[in-house]
Amino acid sequence: MIADVNLMFEENKIYGLLGRNGAGKSSLLNIMTNRIFASAGEVKIDSESVADNDSKLGLMYLMSEVDLYPNGSKLSQIVSDSELMYGGFDHQLADKLIEEFGIDMTQKFGKLSTGYNSIFKLILALCLPVKFVILDEPVLGLDANHREIFYSELLASYSENPRTFILATHLIEEIATIISDVIILDQGRIILNQPVEDVLARTHSVVGPKNDVESYTKGLNVVGHDNIGNIRANYVYGDLDDRRLPDTVQLSNFDLQKLFVFLTNQYEGGKHHEN
Amino acid sequence: MIADVNLMFEENKIYGLLGRNGAGKSSLLNIMTNRIFASAGEVKIDSESVADNDSKLGLMYLMSEVDLYPNGSKLSQIVSDSELMYGGFDHQLADKLIEEFGIDMTQKFGKLSTGYNSIFKLILALCLPVKFVILDEPVLGLDANHREIFYSELLASYSENPRTFILATHLIEEIATIISDVIILDQGRIILNQPVEDVLARTHSVVGPKNDVESYTKGLNVVGHDNIGNIRANYVYGDLDDRRLPDTVQLSNFDLQKLFVFLTNQYEGGKHHEN
Repeated sequence: MIADVNLMFEENKIYGLLGRNGAGKSSLLNIMTNRIFASAGEVKIDSESVADNDSKLGLMYLMSEVDLYPNGSKLSQIVSDSELMYGGFDHQLADKLIEEFGIDMTQKFGKLSTGYNSIFKLILALCLPVKFVILDEPVLGLDANHREIFYSELLASYSENPRTFILATHLIEEIATIISDVIILDQGRIILNQPVEDVLARTHSVVGPKNDVESYTKGLNVVGHDNIGNIRANYVYGDLDDRRLPDTVQLSNFDLQKLFVFLTNQYEGGKHHEN
Repeated sequence: MIADVNLMFEENKIYGLLGRNGAGKSSLLNIMTNRIFASAGEVKIDSESVADNDSKLGLMYLMSEVDLYPNGSKLSQIVSDSELMYGGFDHQLADKLIEEFGIDMTQKFGKLSTGYNSIFKLILALCLPVKFVILDEPVLGLDANHREIFYSELLASYSENPRTFILATHLIEEIATIISDVIILDQGRIILNQPVEDVLARTHSVVGPKNDVESYTKGLNVVGHDNIGNIRANYVYGDLDDRRLPDTVQLSNFDLQKLFVFLTNQYEGGKHHEN
């Protein structure tokens, strides 16, 4: 269930849309692209409603786990059909990607493995002339080499032809250096929507003897902790005020995946605030 | 196709089995557990052949993408059936995992999402009394929080009850700190089989001005490189000999995923050795 979601995607940004299983990511993306209907609210591009507006819908491509292509069609045929439907296709980029990924375009869609099914849809997503490229679990089934090719080709294609990307994935650390903005969806609500840089600057891991760490972080927004013997790490998300740091205590930042786990961990949420 | 594979899994080790899509990982695991037959060669446990030997087959559990359970069965029923078949089940651990993962055991197997399908099979794998726990893509569809729970429960279960684990996964960096040994399968052949510690100690990234880096690494096993402006990074796998390091050049290690990509990258392989 999606509730009270109010989102605005700006031009030429690369968004990471993060959420736990069942948080509502796929529903949100399907509503945005008119594949399912919202019971309330609407989706607009340039202040025009998207619903039943083909010229606006044609500005978006959603690559998702749900397959919309006939199993019996050859990949090259699906490319031709999509080119007609969207009014264009970057064949030069496609040829490069086909060679890098080693995909055989004479194959039938229904015969693809999980990894190559993802790869084929990524090629469509990068080569169709859309303003919004929306990728739901883009690297499902891809091995490490193919994931590297995808991330680097996404950045190259973006810098050649800036447009808006929305990446929904569970592999948070792999996209942390690619995205400009991070959106966290939790139980159908947006709990974070900010530039990655700002988000990471607000993460603080405070490490040292337990008493010193606890007294230093008192009143701060402690979202998680670890204990290693007598050493305590408290993880703070937010400002540190101007309080004086004891010599025994060390400050650093922590990563986006760790922050995500802390902010969306319902079972652990209570525990982290104890003690 | 698997060819010339000669592997010995030792007791109480945690192996990472790595390979690209199509390298033969799943075939190998299916042969080991007698699900498909090898055209040549055999699988032994304690020097006894596994083929058609139920007492030996009962020592292994393979969790794979292929579902062996009836879609209409309740999860709790599959647990009871498996307990009978394998002669035991750790209900105490299972109850803990069921709560941590938040899985409803009254559901039917066929109704599970990709993530919960993986989670259910992981619970079976950790709680059945087998000597060899074999996990093919164990975290497929799991969000970051569930992956953390799985890795930490795997280590806890291993230290409580040491046995042999074999993890086949594309998420190499996530298991790099968990596994004791790494096996890399490439095009049906084993190209690496060593303790992780030894492997990482043989990785060297050599960074500095291009000429200095090239002359320092001449004759060494350079498996990859990067250029950033005038700065060159050559990635060496193997010994550095006793050659003198110029002051301008910096040495460090690189990670397992990077090594994997270099060693298994057929397209790039040639290029890395050029200049």
